[in-house]
Amino acid sequence: MFQSFDEIADPTLGAGRAARLRTELERRGLTGFIVPRADEHQGEYVPPGAERLRWLTGFSGSAGVAVVLANRAAIFVDGRYTLQAQAQCDTTVFEPVDLMANPPHVWLKGALAAGDRLGYDPWLTTVASARRLRETCAAIGAELVAVDGNPIDAIWADRPDVPLGPVTCQPDELAGESVASKLARVASILADKNVDAAVLTQTDSVAWTFNIRGSDIPHTPVALAFSILPRDGRPRLFIDGRKLGNAERDHLEAHADVAKPAAFADGLDKLAGARVLIDESSAAEAIALRIKAAGGTLVAGDDPVLLPKARKNASEIEGTRAAHRRDGAAFVHFLAWFDAAASVISDGSGELDEIAVVEALEGFRRQTGQLVDISFDTISGAGPNGAIVHYRVSRATNRAIAAPSLFLIDSGGQYRDGTTDITRTLPVGMPTTEMRDRFTRVLKGMIAISIARFPIGTIGAQLDSLARFALWQAGLDYDHGTGHGVGSFLSVHEGPQRISKTGTAPLEPGMIISNEPGYYRPDHFGIRIENLILVEPASVPDGGERPMLGFETLTLAPIDRRLIEATLLTRAELKWLDAYHARVRDVLGPLLDAETRDWLEKATEPLG
Amino acid sequence: MFQSFDEIADPTLGAGRAARLRTELERRGLTGFIVPRADEHQGEYVPPGAERLRWLTGFSGSAGVAVVLANRAAIFVDGRYTLQAQAQCDTTVFEPVDLMANPPHVWLKGALAAGDRLGYDPWLTTVASARRLRETCAAIGAELVAVDGNPIDAIWADRPDVPLGPVTCQPDELAGESVASKLARVASILADKNVDAAVLTQTDSVAWTFNIRGSDIPHTPVALAFSILPRDGRPRLFIDGRKLGNAERDHLEAHADVAKPAAFADGLDKLAGARVLIDESSAAEAIALRIKAAGGTLVAGDDPVLLPKARKNASEIEGTRAAHRRDGAAFVHFLAWFDAAASVISDGSGELDEIAVVEALEGFRRQTGQLVDISFDTISGAGPNGAIVHYRVSRATNRAIAAPSLFLIDSGGQYRDGTTDITRTLPVGMPTTEMRDRFTRVLKGMIAISIARFPIGTIGAQLDSLARFALWQAGLDYDHGTGHGVGSFLSVHEGPQRISKTGTAPLEPGMIISNEPGYYRPDHFGIRIENLILVEPASVPDGGERPMLGFETLTLAPIDRRLIEATLLTRAELKWLDAYHARVRDVLGPLLDAETRDWLEKATEPLG
Repeated sequence: MFQSFDEIADPTLGAGRAARLRTELERRGLTGFIVPRADEHQGEYVPPGAERLRWLTGFSGSAGVAVVLANRAAIFVDGRYTLQAQAQCDTTVFEPVDLMANPPHVWLKGALAAGDRLGYDPWLTTVASARRLRETCAAIGAELVAVDGNPIDAIWADRPDVPLGPVTCQPDELAGESVASKLARVASILADKNVDAAVLTQTDSVAWTFNIRGSDIPHTPVALAFSILPRDGRPRLFIDGRKLGNAERDHLEAHADVAKPAAFADGLDKLAGARVLIDESSAAEAIALRIKAAGGTLVAGDDPVLLPKARKNASEIEGTRAAHRRDGAAFVHFLAWFDAAASVISDGSGELDEIAVVEALEGFRRQTGQLVDISFDTISGAGPNGAIVHYRVSRATNRAIAAPSLFLIDSGGQYRDGTTDITRTLPVGMPTTEMRDRFTRVLKGMIAISIARFPIGTIGAQLDSLARFALWQAGLDYDHGTGHGVGSFLSVHEGPQRISKTGTAPLEPGMIISNEPGYYRPDHFGIRIENLILVEPASVPDGGERPMLGFETLTLAPIDRRLIEATLLTRAELKWLDAYHARVRDVLGPLLDAETRDWLEKATEPLG
Repeated sequence: MFQSFDEIADPTLGAGRAARLRTELERRGLTGFIVPRADEHQGEYVPPGAERLRWLTGFSGSAGVAVVLANRAAIFVDGRYTLQAQAQCDTTVFEPVDLMANPPHVWLKGALAAGDRLGYDPWLTTVASARRLRETCAAIGAELVAVDGNPIDAIWADRPDVPLGPVTCQPDELAGESVASKLARVASILADKNVDAAVLTQTDSVAWTFNIRGSDIPHTPVALAFSILPRDGRPRLFIDGRKLGNAERDHLEAHADVAKPAAFADGLDKLAGARVLIDESSAAEAIALRIKAAGGTLVAGDDPVLLPKARKNASEIEGTRAAHRRDGAAFVHFLAWFDAAASVISDGSGELDEIAVVEALEGFRRQTGQLVDISFDTISGAGPNGAIVHYRVSRATNRAIAAPSLFLIDSGGQYRDGTTDITRTLPVGMPTTEMRDRFTRVLKGMIAISIARFPIGTIGAQLDSLARFALWQAGLDYDHGTGHGVGSFLSVHEGPQRISKTGTAPLEPGMIISNEPGYYRPDHFGIRIENLILVEPASVPDGGERPMLGFETLTLAPIDRRLIEATLLTRAELKWLDAYHARVRDVLGPLLDAETRDWLEKATEPLG
């Protein structure tokens, strides 16, 4: 199993660990310290040894910060994680604070005093974040102090070692572009930006540039590594050589000077006199400080690999289509299996729980013979657990599936040719009228995005309301974005493309995005329908004047007809649904066993 | 007539004037000068004496800038004005440049040389704009030089004097809030922002704060004035006393120290030691420079009056409803008149041109007895002229209305209780299938905005695509925003509320916005349908969970049924249209003469 169901949080440890941290801070002459949930690369997922926030507080979510001062401490999480933080942390030690409404640099204005020395780890803090903290300290007359060595590491006895997951090469036929071509393109971007070099700090940027994949991080096939890309001259790659076989070393050394991570600081020093592009929203401040100290000039701008990576090429697109066919067939096997299990639950002759569903689904994906990993921990939510948007089942929360209820399953696979991410909501027993109404409104939103045409230059924020309109009309909404970018056998969350209120990037051909409106009734049920979609040039009807973009739906799996109230759908919506189901049937049918194929025939019968 | 149809542009004058300007610049030791279309208040409309760009280049649009260097000059306008600038300017003297793609601070990078001294008028340049120009000059090794007295003024012999339009008081029953209450609210905003004072530089902000209206600027009832509002103590208002009668002076002196405009600089000097809020996007840099020189500290932030002014109170809302009823009745009289004229044109027995239509419409508005001014120059576009989004008819362009064709009319009135802005597109003779299809798609977009519910916090960018979806599906679009904010007997364009890709302000109850999707087929016809709408709490159907906002449509006038292809409308769209028409009939019927009432009965018959 790729997924673990063990409880990792133990709120009773926080008090002792906070006390030991305070002793360590005192020893260092610090009156406080900031503990972000971050590693040196600022990725969404971090290796176990970087789970300092979890070790200190018990909180295991993917985003959060703790601040420990001499006589008070706080844990900052966003709305998704409010309940989880309260359950996992000792809130008498760590006061819970809303990360969005009152982030650390704001909260500290009321908590610090003049003369305080607030420590932070510049390797775990971005340039932008450090600037905000420094402004806060300056306004108060406190000092922001970069630590030399993280104080948590000094007191965390059994802290896991740095991971040494093997690296593999991503062949050109899957990557669709050689390393040499990518490096030439990046060099031309650097020339356009009038800089001499860029520092790549994000692991997926390094993986994309050098056509490698790694296994240092759960579910995201990246290797911990940094790179310095010069406009002219030889790139440098800083990576632990123990992760490289001979083939991988040869592949990398053909394009770059490969050095140990310990040589990175020296590599930064060599940027003396250079104009260096740094992405302030993702680069650790330690890197910026080192370049400045060495006499380099920092130029703030986006990671130069961000957009080239987001615009998938023809091979990546073919790969993701193949991955979605394979994953779709596995998922349909799972759906047929679940449907049978749901019948047994409904008639009282059998049982099933959330963990068993995760294990079954992973099993179907493994049977493809090509599953490298799941792309994130499966969200397997029975009844009320489906209403918890970022629910992650553990042995403690594992819930039996009851009838009648809705079951929400959000999961994905990492295949060498593509990354998948799919959510379906499934009925167990007879759904209520309310469930069918809500499901259909969510579906109307998903279809509106699916069929939308839009001109070049349209940004994600503009499309967001199409997915919400039918819910809004009923006084309903969902508290998450409509869609996130997805990588090509890389991170299941990538930017800059997104469909949400904050989506400012124009959508461009080749970008992969999720399309996942939802509805959540707390303590009752959750609904989400998610397909991955690909931005591509759209056909324009006769009389159309402008080149338009649109979406190809990549994900192939039926949408449960028993949850659809067909009278709420327009003709155009019914037409899309029936055509999508026909396509699912035609494409996946040949990949299924006979029994499942029969099941799929019924599951995809036209509604219109 | 409020509207003039005289040609003001004469492209033959530009060469001589540019030569005289260069002589003047040389005398002052400058190698170049920037001429924005702006006055000291950075309003959209400026008094005649501030039309320096028009005087120099001939260009009469509402946005643009010229740069004159020793051996080249350029005129920068956006896409709306490309054709107009080419027609109005001598392009052998002023090279036309795209203001959006290549604004002056970018263009100058290739046009300036090290050692150049580029002049600018800090009274006509915002803080933000001056900063960009200064960065450009610094990068090149040129110098940005603030002029002391505008060089254009030195060579413009018959430059019009500063206007002295009379000021009136806006009574509390229309303003809905006393000056004392407004000043107290602003003081509390300043306290929240931890500043000691704010400088109001925008004329509509001053008008709103002090409940006055003016007549210095065509079509916008504001007085040229500045104000300094302290957190504690007495506000100062700088305004030419010749504009004030005794009652107005008494009204103002009850709340503020009233001084001459010439005393403004001295008022700024008195801010020594204070933290002063400045809106860098609208405040002239001269003001910021003066405060800094006097020892004040600048704090950048939005004009503190921007949001309070945008959120209309109950009296302003009642006022705008009354204004829309009055204006709607006048407009329906106009529509009936036009319809009769269109018949006469169609059967060849009569003629009508664009100017005659403007005059007729203004006449109907004047008959209300309450029209203070039109709210902008009427856009009266026959046939192909309707496709020019910012068309302004002059004696030279005046076009006879032919059959068959579409006629587009965009106009509005200033009444003491509210500002209106309405566009209708009208058929002359039999419309084509294409025209009806396009009109109906535009209408679908307008209805989608009209019926939308949305949660608190929704920004304008999110709603924009609802208005475009039906056009996008056909490969069509329009190159302007969907909606702009509208003032309360103030500017017909106000922020921060807007519905467009760049609309980042959350929509809040009380905000008035236009809802005006369109479609333009160049050289053939233009379509736009515009209603003003008011943000207000929306009713939520049974089962709705969240407080939602929605729009009340303020504008009352039928939408031409002959241009609607009813089969393209959904049931919900037909329902809205018929309900809107029933409301128009019920509300306006009693205000019309019998003949027009009969006409309205037919024009508002149900389609559903």
